[in-house]
Amino acid sequence: MPLPASAFNALDTYVQDSRQDFEDMLGQLVEVPSISMDPSHKSDIQRCAVMAGQYLQNFGFQVEIVATPGNPVVFGEFHAGDNYPTIAIYNHLDVQPAQEPEWRKDPFTFVIDGDRYDGRGSTDDKGPAMTALFGTKYAIDNGFPVNIKLIWELEEESGSPSFESFIKNNLAKVKADVVAVSDTIWISRGQPAIPYGLRGLQGMTLHLETHATDIHSGTTGGVARNPIGELCKVIAECYDASTGKVKIPGFYKDVKAATAAEIKSFLDSGFTLKKFMAAHKMKSTRKLTTAQALKAIFAMPTFEVHGMVGGYTGPGVKTVIPPRAEAKISMRLVPNMTTSKTFRLAEKFIKSRNKDIKIVRENALEPYLGPFTGPYADAGRRAMEFGFGKKPAFTREGGSIGAVVTMKNYLKVPIVFLGLSLPEHGYHAPNENYDWGQASGGMKMFAKYFAEIADMKS
Amino acid sequence: MPLPASAFNALDTYVQDSRQDFEDMLGQLVEVPSISMDPSHKSDIQRCAVMAGQYLQNFGFQVEIVATPGNPVVFGEFHAGDNYPTIAIYNHLDVQPAQEPEWRKDPFTFVIDGDRYDGRGSTDDKGPAMTALFGTKYAIDNGFPVNIKLIWELEEESGSPSFESFIKNNLAKVKADVVAVSDTIWISRGQPAIPYGLRGLQGMTLHLETHATDIHSGTTGGVARNPIGELCKVIAECYDASTGKVKIPGFYKDVKAATAAEIKSFLDSGFTLKKFMAAHKMKSTRKLTTAQALKAIFAMPTFEVHGMVGGYTGPGVKTVIPPRAEAKISMRLVPNMTTSKTFRLAEKFIKSRNKDIKIVRENALEPYLGPFTGPYADAGRRAMEFGFGKKPAFTREGGSIGAVVTMKNYLKVPIVFLGLSLPEHGYHAPNENYDWGQASGGMKMFAKYFAEIADMKS
Repeated sequence: MPLPASAFNALDTYVQDSRQDFEDMLGQLVEVPSISMDPSHKSDIQRCAVMAGQYLQNFGFQVEIVATPGNPVVFGEFHAGDNYPTIAIYNHLDVQPAQEPEWRKDPFTFVIDGDRYDGRGSTDDKGPAMTALFGTKYAIDNGFPVNIKLIWELEEESGSPSFESFIKNNLAKVKADVVAVSDTIWISRGQPAIPYGLRGLQGMTLHLETHATDIHSGTTGGVARNPIGELCKVIAECYDASTGKVKIPGFYKDVKAATAAEIKSFLDSGFTLKKFMAAHKMKSTRKLTTAQALKAIFAMPTFEVHGMVGGYTGPGVKTVIPPRAEAKISMRLVPNMTTSKTFRLAEKFIKSRNKDIKIVRENALEPYLGPFTGPYADAGRRAMEFGFGKKPAFTREGGSIGAVVTMKNYLKVPIVFLGLSLPEHGYHAPNENYDWGQASGGMKMFAKYFAEIADMKS
Repeated sequence: MPLPASAFNALDTYVQDSRQDFEDMLGQLVEVPSISMDPSHKSDIQRCAVMAGQYLQNFGFQVEIVATPGNPVVFGEFHAGDNYPTIAIYNHLDVQPAQEPEWRKDPFTFVIDGDRYDGRGSTDDKGPAMTALFGTKYAIDNGFPVNIKLIWELEEESGSPSFESFIKNNLAKVKADVVAVSDTIWISRGQPAIPYGLRGLQGMTLHLETHATDIHSGTTGGVARNPIGELCKVIAECYDASTGKVKIPGFYKDVKAATAAEIKSFLDSGFTLKKFMAAHKMKSTRKLTTAQALKAIFAMPTFEVHGMVGGYTGPGVKTVIPPRAEAKISMRLVPNMTTSKTFRLAEKFIKSRNKDIKIVRENALEPYLGPFTGPYADAGRRAMEFGFGKKPAFTREGGSIGAVVTMKNYLKVPIVFLGLSLPEHGYHAPNENYDWGQASGGMKMFAKYFAEIADMKS
């Protein structure tokens, strides 16, 4: 039996009444500089974990701070009833460093400016975590028939090195019917967005050594091989940098093309090339329409050169032929590509073009595709509309989130992205902020999503 | 009237008797670390100039240490008679740095080991300069009807920045009927070689900026331009790095093809790919026959990438798209190419392929072709055979010597290369050395060449 509409009667008042507590709790959390990639902040990570555990306990959760080989995971569970459905919500409480010179104030002093909350971690991801927590309180206080688990990681900004071990060793504990991840960004304020897919990643380095030391390009030039030139050639054979088109045979074979409905949904997100270029300080882009651009980021793989190492790099031109060169490459993958097959194709092609290039496989993450249709996606649609007054666009993310792939592999349940950040919040950027509009709408959204999940088994 | 054969009767004895003085003088000179590219050695440059000036004076020359905007030039003149022909001999007394860890002994302590002389500068170019000087003494002592000028530069290893100003401001002083340059290397011991051509050089840097800061290859990859990838593409369009073939339209148009006689002469030099690879510590070369390889180095232009700057260069792969990249390029030129036309062709082609690339013209040197036939070349043939008992191979040098192009432009007389260094002497390398075999043969060669020049006007 679905929850009656009256279940939400007290929600607006609850959200308004929660504002003071929400701001106090978020403020204290933001002022802990829980920078996971800086070892000198180890004690801040611990302080953050203890504070978060206390929060969960105060809100009625059973709490465990679970040790891992790296940073701990804060785990909270509210058990409403044995036969009720269970939702797990993933957030992270570690933050990016904040050394950019553009910061206008101390990044670890929380400042409230009207509806705006300033501070490192406010939107990525402490604000959304607190928002979800306040959503759970409404569900708990109002007796929603749903079990809730909260998984708060403290290593996400360092690539989640211990998360797989955490999930693997705590499978029974974290088991759920659905996982909600609240760590994604809308494309445009006022237009809710639910990403349902992530690209994967396959990194590789190409190494070529043709001689032992710098040699004179006069004495040897014409006969000597040039490792930089040969890497440039093979890179140009792998892809056309002007268009982005990858020329490795078979590269696109497993790409599941985005449907017309998906492309339409991408376009509903409020994306424009102009805003995109401004946000990323681009002078120009590849020649693409808006639909092509969205498809290129959300639903197509890439080949990218991140760096070339080798040769003379000082002022002017030193006319030596360097002995070796290295190219840093990655390929972004989309469903149904796999990292191992993609790497094999690239390796085989590159070797066929230049057998002397040594290819080293680097970091790899599988792509992820969650529900675009079906009950969990539709529940997300209704919850977002309930919270923000507008149907969400279903989009994808061009990046990769390792924790999502891990949870998918081990928990084998749908994963829905209920993110709340906005482009202007400065994700991974100076002057990071969050705001009460997203927090208050987000609390309602979470409350509604819990009700939707509860209804599924009722 | 040619000098009688008896003019050389005393030569062998003279050379043997000179050995002690030659070794003393070369040793003192080598022990002055006259490193021109290191400003902390300014006083050594001065010390070297004064010592050299003293040597010339002791040998009967009128000496002037000519100031330039940079290091001085040591100039010596022996005037035998107003109607006699005049030869100018160019050497340099500055040396390369000597910081390579492979040095087995102090580079600036002169060591005599049998016929071998160890020390930085021993073969490049103090040994050949002293050899030429001892050759002049025989001509002077025996009354050869030839005027001799010695031009000893002290900035050659830093690219001769003041040499043009020296020549331009001292045209009357340095005027000669022929110039001999003694700063080149044979290709194989036992096979004298006279290079008669040098390649030119046109450097350029390519700059491409497509956005303002590092951007995330997940969030933007597919739409964002990649400046490294685009430079790789344009470089691959400019030339095929596997073969070295340049694809810029018109690039080869002005190349004066080497004749069959020239190629045969190149082959006479004792060049083998095996020795060449060993000398330059190469694992492999482009696929070329011996004749093709010689042609490629001596008589064909090149396109070379010396460095790529931009993007991530640390360990592993950091998945950012860098905002800008730069490529360091040079083209080696052969007669009758010119630097300005070659640069224009490259610039036009690169701009037509990618209009956003900024192209900066860097260092430029015209190619040089001296006499392969004719009286001055034949005089060289006879002198080398007289000194070393074997006809020289006429070869070319793949590199560029700025001072030669300057002298050609201002003096407009034939320039003949009478070099004495051997590949195993370690030119620009650790454990540099010279030897009595090359010095004694070289003294005879110079004496004979002076006689040959004297004969031309007699």
